[in-house]
Amino acid sequence: MQPLKTLARTPLLTVGDGRFLKVEQHEVAFPNGTVIKDWPWVITPDFVNVMAVTQEGLVLCFRQMKYAVEGETLAVPGGYLEAGESPLAAAQRELREETGYEADMWESLGTYAVDGNRGNGTAYLFLATGARPVQAIDADDLEDQELLLLTMPEIESALAAGHFKVLPWAANVALALVRLQRRMGGQV
Amino acid sequence: MQPLKTLARTPLLTVGDGRFLKVEQHEVAFPNGTVIKDWPWVITPDFVNVMAVTQEGLVLCFRQMKYAVEGETLAVPGGYLEAGESPLAAAQRELREETGYEADMWESLGTYAVDGNRGNGTAYLFLATGARPVQAIDADDLEDQELLLLTMPEIESALAAGHFKVLPWAANVALALVRLQRRMGGQV
Repeated sequence: MQPLKTLARTPLLTVGDGRFLKVEQHEVAFPNGTVIKDWPWVITPDFVNVMAVTQEGLVLCFRQMKYAVEGETLAVPGGYLEAGESPLAAAQRELREETGYEADMWESLGTYAVDGNRGNGTAYLFLATGARPVQAIDADDLEDQELLLLTMPEIESALAAGHFKVLPWAANVALALVRLQRRMGGQV
Repeated sequence: MQPLKTLARTPLLTVGDGRFLKVEQHEVAFPNGTVIKDWPWVITPDFVNVMAVTQEGLVLCFRQMKYAVEGETLAVPGGYLEAGESPLAAAQRELREETGYEADMWESLGTYAVDGNRGNGTAYLFLATGARPVQAIDADDLEDQELLLLTMPEIESALAAGHFKVLPWAANVALALVRLQRRMGGQV
């Protein structure tokens, strides 16, 4: 299959210092010959999330409020990559800062474009197991959040009930459950 | 927990007729008293995706190119909601147009904010089972795409290998696998 080609890029918008949002207009050539001159391209920070399972088999979650969500949502730890930071290092840092836990085993659950058309940042999702408390929580989030330790059945029920209301968090939990199931040799 | 409050909204950017991208700046009050005056809010179209399983137990996927992704990706059917259209009707229409299939049983896999901070549209994800071909494909996508019928083990392997490179598609497949597993009474 032939790739789409970027013929030109024009900056359209920078909010503040551009850390959280920049928008460009791209001129894009499609394999069928179509050229679209005003293709919007959204640049937001790349981020990590992690489903972390403690040594006791419990999952570290938050109950919190988010601006884009009505009412409370469940969340997994995560945050934006800092400059020069690898996704794994960012995930380990966010887990430590937000929960006070470190984990023995880390594995990637994949790297994803948030929006297949407009970009919107890259999501790096992880599964961490063998997590244990090592320090106090040191989070800088503006929202209220409460740390919860949920059992695997509680996590499955919360996911099925739609309590993880933000797409990367639901994706992270579902991908982790599929991975853990495969490891146990189960058939879906 | 206290909600975040929108104190003011200012339009910042409308690309073209605004169908695909508008940006606003919100003034947001956090429960801790912090007020942020330049909170970016991104308005992109709400969309549906569906993992559709045929009467023979095969999953309808595409191999395709997308602008935000390097190389080929696997995809599930989906697209933007039309004006006044319900998410379920949109998912049924997209499945029919993109694959030529209709399905007997539809269930929601949840409603998700794509970005917990900046919005970026709402994802409505579905699982459809009992799918069967009813018409020719009538897709309007600009990208090359090839329809595939994959077995459940092929889908699981492709998901684990990161071949679904766009977040809502990986989320849709993972959530569907978890749902199907729960239905079979399996334990994760």
